[in-house]
Amino acid sequence: MRARKKPWTQEVLQEAMEQDLLIKEPEQLKGKWKKHLQTNSLHVEIGSGKGDYFVGMSSLYPEEGWVGIEKDSVIAGYALRKSFGVIGNNGKFINDDTIKIDLWFNENEIDVIHLNFSDPWPKKAHHKRRLTTPSFGQTYQTLLKNGGQIILKSDNQQFFEDSLVVLSKSFELEDIWVDFRSKEHPEDIISEYEQRFIDLGQPIYRSIWRNRK
Amino acid sequence: MRARKKPWTQEVLQEAMEQDLLIKEPEQLKGKWKKHLQTNSLHVEIGSGKGDYFVGMSSLYPEEGWVGIEKDSVIAGYALRKSFGVIGNNGKFINDDTIKIDLWFNENEIDVIHLNFSDPWPKKAHHKRRLTTPSFGQTYQTLLKNGGQIILKSDNQQFFEDSLVVLSKSFELEDIWVDFRSKEHPEDIISEYEQRFIDLGQPIYRSIWRNRK
Repeated sequence: MRARKKPWTQEVLQEAMEQDLLIKEPEQLKGKWKKHLQTNSLHVEIGSGKGDYFVGMSSLYPEEGWVGIEKDSVIAGYALRKSFGVIGNNGKFINDDTIKIDLWFNENEIDVIHLNFSDPWPKKAHHKRRLTTPSFGQTYQTLLKNGGQIILKSDNQQFFEDSLVVLSKSFELEDIWVDFRSKEHPEDIISEYEQRFIDLGQPIYRSIWRNRK
Repeated sequence: MRARKKPWTQEVLQEAMEQDLLIKEPEQLKGKWKKHLQTNSLHVEIGSGKGDYFVGMSSLYPEEGWVGIEKDSVIAGYALRKSFGVIGNNGKFINDDTIKIDLWFNENEIDVIHLNFSDPWPKKAHHKRRLTTPSFGQTYQTLLKNGGQIILKSDNQQFFEDSLVVLSKSFELEDIWVDFRSKEHPEDIISEYEQRFIDLGQPIYRSIWRNRK
């Protein structure tokens, strides 16, 4: 899904690059993210969308480093616009296609990968576009350190179920919730998008996977 | 949960033993179940309860062999009473504690283990009584053939979630449903017990695990 062009997008992206909030050449930071973010722990949100979860989480955990990846520049523009002056030096964005992720991060460099309401691509012919294909699963296994985690949250049953089956081939299931919001979870941010499903009374699915090399 | 004694229980159990429907000495059949049941495929339902699922499944798949294990003799009595004249020579019961299961079956002897609405033992102090403890997980791995399956179905969120985490340590997740009855599944029997949850609009959880030795 590609968002409609906005007149302010280019200006926001330009400003974000000047502030080192949007990383222009992420391959230059390969192997150096933790140093650049002055942290011991690197979180990467793949498909950070309009940034609610990213902004919330990087503010909730300011000692940890956060990198948000969003392909669509208009969508990334929304996230950047709400990040100015809000998130600290521990949060950075990449506006490019995750297919290139192994150009940006070293093996074992990432501590936690977040897949928060990833596009479920419901049609079977589109499943190959999902962020939880077997191929991406292998890439995540390489980039995550031993003991690193994937945290996956979704409202979409079919996407959640299929992702569980794929990820179980490479990772160890550490925790799972079939109705995550039936209890309070102050450790995890609710985006505007997620709130809509909660308001509709729909269950939110979440799982945590551990990388064992 | 122990059921209240019924005056007819002993009589039903006696009759079932005479008909070879209830196996008196299951250890005598260790390694010989498929021959005894004249089948190439052995299903074992652990905790077969009042027998709705067992009777339904063994009738739906008459070419396959089915063994139902139920500890409580009164509950087993209900299952036996509804089995007389209904299930064929492909279905047998054991009325004893599953803790002894490795006395009754050889390594690699079982094709599929069914855990259908197992007692969730909701209190933390009682979790050790569940049929999906790590210890039972290891036993199932031994008794199942390579490529054998566990099919687990439950209405209980916490039991389902915890069981997924335990089983993922020994088995490969093959399929999972977080709302199994949102679609038709004629291949799987709905017990009276399950129907109550469906009628209440509650989701039914199901997963299939593959044994990889």
